[in-house]
Amino acid sequence: MTHHDDAVAAFTQLLGANGVITAAADQERYVRDWAGARLGMPLAVVRPRTTEEVAAVVGYCHRNGICMVAQGGHTGLVKGALPDSRTPEVVISLERMTRIRGLDPLNFSMAVDGGCILEEVKRAAEEADCFFPLSLGAQGSCQIGGNIATNAGGVNVLRYGMMRELVLGLEVVLPDGEIWSGMKALHKDNRGYDLKQLFLGSEGTLGIVTGAVLKLTPRPEQSQTALLAVPSVEAAVRLYALTRRRCSDLLSAFELMPRLCLELAFEAAPQLADPFDEAYPYHVLLELTATGPVDLSGLLEGLLEAGMEHEVVLDGVLASSVAQAGQLWAIRESMVEGQLLRGEHLRTDVSVPISSIAECVEQATAEVAALSPTSQVIAYGHIGDGNLHINVLPPAETPAEALPALFERLERAIFTVVDGFDGSISAEHGIGRSKQAAFLDRLTVTERRLLAGIKAVFDPDDLMGAGRIQPASERSSS
Amino acid sequence: MTHHDDAVAAFTQLLGANGVITAAADQERYVRDWAGARLGMPLAVVRPRTTEEVAAVVGYCHRNGICMVAQGGHTGLVKGALPDSRTPEVVISLERMTRIRGLDPLNFSMAVDGGCILEEVKRAAEEADCFFPLSLGAQGSCQIGGNIATNAGGVNVLRYGMMRELVLGLEVVLPDGEIWSGMKALHKDNRGYDLKQLFLGSEGTLGIVTGAVLKLTPRPEQSQTALLAVPSVEAAVRLYALTRRRCSDLLSAFELMPRLCLELAFEAAPQLADPFDEAYPYHVLLELTATGPVDLSGLLEGLLEAGMEHEVVLDGVLASSVAQAGQLWAIRESMVEGQLLRGEHLRTDVSVPISSIAECVEQATAEVAALSPTSQVIAYGHIGDGNLHINVLPPAETPAEALPALFERLERAIFTVVDGFDGSISAEHGIGRSKQAAFLDRLTVTERRLLAGIKAVFDPDDLMGAGRIQPASERSSS
Repeated sequence: MTHHDDAVAAFTQLLGANGVITAAADQERYVRDWAGARLGMPLAVVRPRTTEEVAAVVGYCHRNGICMVAQGGHTGLVKGALPDSRTPEVVISLERMTRIRGLDPLNFSMAVDGGCILEEVKRAAEEADCFFPLSLGAQGSCQIGGNIATNAGGVNVLRYGMMRELVLGLEVVLPDGEIWSGMKALHKDNRGYDLKQLFLGSEGTLGIVTGAVLKLTPRPEQSQTALLAVPSVEAAVRLYALTRRRCSDLLSAFELMPRLCLELAFEAAPQLADPFDEAYPYHVLLELTATGPVDLSGLLEGLLEAGMEHEVVLDGVLASSVAQAGQLWAIRESMVEGQLLRGEHLRTDVSVPISSIAECVEQATAEVAALSPTSQVIAYGHIGDGNLHINVLPPAETPAEALPALFERLERAIFTVVDGFDGSISAEHGIGRSKQAAFLDRLTVTERRLLAGIKAVFDPDDLMGAGRIQPASERSSS
Repeated sequence: MTHHDDAVAAFTQLLGANGVITAAADQERYVRDWAGARLGMPLAVVRPRTTEEVAAVVGYCHRNGICMVAQGGHTGLVKGALPDSRTPEVVISLERMTRIRGLDPLNFSMAVDGGCILEEVKRAAEEADCFFPLSLGAQGSCQIGGNIATNAGGVNVLRYGMMRELVLGLEVVLPDGEIWSGMKALHKDNRGYDLKQLFLGSEGTLGIVTGAVLKLTPRPEQSQTALLAVPSVEAAVRLYALTRRRCSDLLSAFELMPRLCLELAFEAAPQLADPFDEAYPYHVLLELTATGPVDLSGLLEGLLEAGMEHEVVLDGVLASSVAQAGQLWAIRESMVEGQLLRGEHLRTDVSVPISSIAECVEQATAEVAALSPTSQVIAYGHIGDGNLHINVLPPAETPAEALPALFERLERAIFTVVDGFDGSISAEHGIGRSKQAAFLDRLTVTERRLLAGIKAVFDPDDLMGAGRIQPASERSSS
């Protein structure tokens, strides 16, 4: 028996035959991510049902020097969860760990397994008249453990924060197989270094999140959604400040979309109607939500008036029903699909100070135009977070083999613009493998030393998530 | 010249004579904290004016194996900033680093020096029609760098989070004297391990915070303050849930105070009038704030009605002016002074799930009564954070020399009760030296290894803040 056969036999003994997948055909859905990317084939895919089973598998890998990667819903966009192409890894899928462990409405908290699908978490919260705020396009398939490992963002960050601000407690299987139990349901706990914060955003390189205590809010009882036409990006930024100042902390989403976004949405979903008679250059999709007797529609109408008076709003559609609000959100969501329909394109996920958004978009657009005059820039995103997806649709006639080099040049140019505003080259997607070179390029020697040092404290043999965020250690091939 | 004389000469050369204090009399205010505690005398007190000067001092200490401790406003309550009594430390005071570096109202952010007094930060924000939410009793003297190092809390945490959630960027002098510049003004930045999170709450053991970019909100334009009488702690908890559900996210503070709190406040500030005709068992001081045209007084009146209907409110005083609101807050603040006037007493700072608060107070009160029947328990705090200060006023006749042993027994009993609810023995004050034994007792071997490992990555020689949070390394006396 080879080393690998031994491992498969051990996993089968630990998890049962049903818990281990070795046939290449059955592994297919574990080796390809949402965007269609794939790298290598795993040593095996294992599907533990409990934290103890995760710990047993990880412990075995640790003792035997086997590399491993945790896998959630496979909706990440930086190739972090894909099994490696050089060193065979064990894929540890959390898909069978989907229990809601408990919900405490008086404490506004719920405890869940790491494999729970985000949408199920949100539904369970709603059934208890509560609300779990994390909202993103992939919520029907992403897992909460993955959301935690990648510190997920989405459309409600401006009000509720990223995943980091929505976690009260964590349970993590460490790279040596020990279970770290930090499942406290406390809103305040200030004891020394907060290990929880390190696991959040570590992309599975310091441990595997098997459970979490999440922070809930009361379920919003009313919401107001509007799609506003604005003359420029700069006007959208000024409208954001106005909205914050007029609507207290009741603003939940504030999404910028240029005209091209609407057109892409209509291409992907022809049943959607254009809510405007005119083609305006930019739009803002905003949502106010509240619990209790707040006059939300009055607030929104007042905002619209003030926006027109300040000449930052040209026109607007206020949703008069939940269905109509859904139609407006469908534009935002279909637009992502519309980009895919146009074929391969460059996606970025950058952030700058909110006050620099307009200038950043302008400069990035100019840089792209200089490099590739017939490419189309589509800059949309979360104004309240300073987070833009400055994407580029290449000219239709570009040969497929020329795309990678073109995208690399364009990405480099956009990142240089972002550097000029002291921005970030990864605002919410994380680093994984895709952003690693750009990430490392921007670190000092000291920063690299600190990151490597932290990794070594948790995983001295570099067996867990090796090669994500930081380069993998040199090792002899197995 | 001794090793110490050399150091003083070097510091004088780096900072000028004005920047170094060696006379014991002049050092007095750097060796005694707000609560009057003192431990040892420092090797010297240094007062750098810039980040570069901090780096130069730290670099010298690093090269010469000299211990150092950063010092802010000296308002911490866990003896973290006091110079050590065994190994002479250099006290690095940030008191001359008080620049507001810049404020960006469109980005809702401001950059400040680490030595800025919290109240000055709040004032500067207000001058730009913005708001920095951190609010605590010591805000007139605590420094923002200290607030960051200790991840400070206060009365507005339920709405705005602890210091951790109010920091966008940091500048830190590392224990080897290198300057780590993470002064980005980004609301979203998701690049690998977030070093910033490690410095937050590390109590000066991983680096010295010399600058920060803080997150602002729009300045509240209106507020409503009320002091409500409630029949029990359990009713206060139910009232909290009701308030969250009726007042959207406009609730800024929700403070529990038993009757004894009011009496202590009136002892400390006899000019304060008792707003009630009757002596009720418990009170809630709550505040709603908003920007924009929200009918806040309508919300509060509705809440009061609903509270009475649900029998969780017995009586209430709504402040009809800013001055009257100030009077109600003065009760909350004078109560702390009132405890001091009663002499030495046991202070704790614990948290439990909000839903366990009532039972926790009941059990803790019973435990104290069993150990010391004539002691008075005073349990007050931040309901929305599950954070209670369960303090104990000992019998007046207790001899001073008997107090430490009594407090130790009582604290141990209260902490055991808190453990029963899977709570925290330090919700907001941190660990420092005072909480270290109780903190370490509750860690697993793995947790101790991880914390020591992290410290060693940043400060392998254990020269910075040694002995805070974790025990100091063994070293030969200098």
